[in-house]
Amino acid sequence: MTIDLNAIQPFHPPRRALMGPGPSDMHPRVLTALGQPVIGHLDPAFADMMEELKVLLRYAFQTDNALTFPVSGPGSVGMETCFVNLVEPGDKVIVCRNGVFGGRMIENVERCGGVAVVVEDAWGEAVDPQKLADALKAHPDAKVVAFVQAETSTGALSDARILIDVAHQAGCLTIVDAVTSLGGVALEVDEWGADAVYSGSQKCLSCTPGLSPVTFGERAVERVKNRQRKVQSWFMDLNLVLGYWDAAKRTYHHTAPINSLYALHESLLMLKEEGIENAWARHQRHHLALRAGFEALGLSFVVKPEARLPQLNAVHVPDGIDEAAVRRSLLTDFNLEIGAGLGPLAGKIWRFGLMGHSCREENVLLCLDALARTFAAQGRAADGAGAIEAARAAYGRC
Amino acid sequence: MTIDLNAIQPFHPPRRALMGPGPSDMHPRVLTALGQPVIGHLDPAFADMMEELKVLLRYAFQTDNALTFPVSGPGSVGMETCFVNLVEPGDKVIVCRNGVFGGRMIENVERCGGVAVVVEDAWGEAVDPQKLADALKAHPDAKVVAFVQAETSTGALSDARILIDVAHQAGCLTIVDAVTSLGGVALEVDEWGADAVYSGSQKCLSCTPGLSPVTFGERAVERVKNRQRKVQSWFMDLNLVLGYWDAAKRTYHHTAPINSLYALHESLLMLKEEGIENAWARHQRHHLALRAGFEALGLSFVVKPEARLPQLNAVHVPDGIDEAAVRRSLLTDFNLEIGAGLGPLAGKIWRFGLMGHSCREENVLLCLDALARTFAAQGRAADGAGAIEAARAAYGRC
Repeated sequence: MTIDLNAIQPFHPPRRALMGPGPSDMHPRVLTALGQPVIGHLDPAFADMMEELKVLLRYAFQTDNALTFPVSGPGSVGMETCFVNLVEPGDKVIVCRNGVFGGRMIENVERCGGVAVVVEDAWGEAVDPQKLADALKAHPDAKVVAFVQAETSTGALSDARILIDVAHQAGCLTIVDAVTSLGGVALEVDEWGADAVYSGSQKCLSCTPGLSPVTFGERAVERVKNRQRKVQSWFMDLNLVLGYWDAAKRTYHHTAPINSLYALHESLLMLKEEGIENAWARHQRHHLALRAGFEALGLSFVVKPEARLPQLNAVHVPDGIDEAAVRRSLLTDFNLEIGAGLGPLAGKIWRFGLMGHSCREENVLLCLDALARTFAAQGRAADGAGAIEAARAAYGRC
Repeated sequence: MTIDLNAIQPFHPPRRALMGPGPSDMHPRVLTALGQPVIGHLDPAFADMMEELKVLLRYAFQTDNALTFPVSGPGSVGMETCFVNLVEPGDKVIVCRNGVFGGRMIENVERCGGVAVVVEDAWGEAVDPQKLADALKAHPDAKVVAFVQAETSTGALSDARILIDVAHQAGCLTIVDAVTSLGGVALEVDEWGADAVYSGSQKCLSCTPGLSPVTFGERAVERVKNRQRKVQSWFMDLNLVLGYWDAAKRTYHHTAPINSLYALHESLLMLKEEGIENAWARHQRHHLALRAGFEALGLSFVVKPEARLPQLNAVHVPDGIDEAAVRRSLLTDFNLEIGAGLGPLAGKIWRFGLMGHSCREENVLLCLDALARTFAAQGRAADGAGAIEAARAAYGRC
């Protein structure tokens, strides 16, 4: 396709309901905050907002960690920020892999010159704490344990509290991927003692994509301060970034993504107004309704019930159904985005997100109705009315 | 200052005129584009927009380079993307330093394991091509030459065309910092043969901060493909990022900052509508008017006329004037942001930006009037009416 420069017009996105693995729908309040006029990144009014942002983020992470702020980049930059600061060449890092993002962690360890020891669990399973304990016994020189609390590629929830505990018993620091978990399921950074945690703005926080909230506990900060060599990334070096986010210093480091931070402030404020436990409960309530509808449609989940993420519902594609055609029809005929499978699950599963502002009744019902109609169009009997009735009954029970 | 979580309210920024070193004022069209509803980063509608974005960026950079796209991070990430991809451990890199950002380049070289050879010019001077030629003669094993076309810390414009030519004669690739230059002064990537160029969204493009347009020529791409070892950053590894920005692949790499990219599309489209040569001329026109007004106020420029950036006007703080008090008064009494000096110039200069949408007559006149009043409040005679008259006369001559 050749594009004629002179024919390009202003871009107006179609209106979608976002039920994929993120981004999720942004609330009108957050969009309005985003579109406010830009001010300087050293403006005192902006500095005050940054201080509030840190307080709001501490609430979302349930932590008192001083070092809590949004990295100016997507979740992958938050991930890399954790690894480049906490891993030095030669350091042994245990990485628990049960999906795509564990694999990305291994890449990060190796590019920092670290040695990755991989604890494997099947895609769709939670990380097995016993396997981690065994690996730590076999590698007593390990310094860091890294795992994904909520695997976005499969919808599996691992028990972060127990994994952190096992890591700490072996004297390791923990790096926790909370990209999809933050705001959607319980994450108690201080109570569980997580040392370094990163997340993303565009999942259960329903903010604009491109920011990665992070938090570091005292032991992690100590580790960064006592490094033998400089952090390999200038941009991600916490020692430098902090000069800007520290109210007492506020030295120029880079130009913060001002408008995106307005939006994050608003989305975190909405989370605070709702109450974080209420947000967790809301994700669970709509998940149970969607589940009831899916079961009425004869769909089966990839993850067993006890490890199922409410905000990311992965189901097997039924036999005889064209996986990609269904997604295409949902998008073009219903303006509904859902997610495909990744890696070994590509073509075999769909992923239905119920994240943040996307996690509401109208989306659940739209999804069940659209899915039933799309199945029917492919010649597979599907009782859409029954699915909606099952979802409504589930809501009644909540 | 302790912030009470329960007392935090929605943030509404004050309305400022941004005449600092960036961010610059965003046009209402760009703010409106930014605040449009989010869609998925793999949505076909978004993919089409990405293709248009690349075409628009090629226009802004005046290049046909296939590898032209916006990095999902601030200009510092664009800078680091160039260095981590083009510099391998042990590589010798000539860095021309005449301000803050040359210093940052040295940091980048060293953190990549490279050896930086520094060509020094005074802050406020352009880079001296003869010094570069001498350094290249003394270091025939150098592989890369890096310099800043428009030093934001001083307002000095270096002759990129000649510096690139000198570097090429010695067989070196070039990394060019065009953060403040893109859209404000001539930058002809193809005609000049620049190999790797990075910029920022929040300067003369007047877009939301947080994106870094980059472009890489064939020789740079060749260098990246033939690296001995993996790029040390997973996020910035061009081999991986490209899988997403390549229309033929479109493989998931990270979640793009969707809304910010809407805004970039709109701001680049506006640049196209204006015509890039017209944008360059507009920056020059308003610079000449501001200069006339400054001279009427008795202010002197840091940079000599032939190396002066129209979009970044650095002037000496007059004797007996409280530098910080003037900036504070401009901000609080006139809602006008200007920039302070950095490094050795801190407290000694002010920096007045005329970038993108900020570069217009009402800002020039506001600035002259506000400055004269602020000087007068500090007991320094200042003829505001005369300054405005001088600026108007300069407009008349343009």
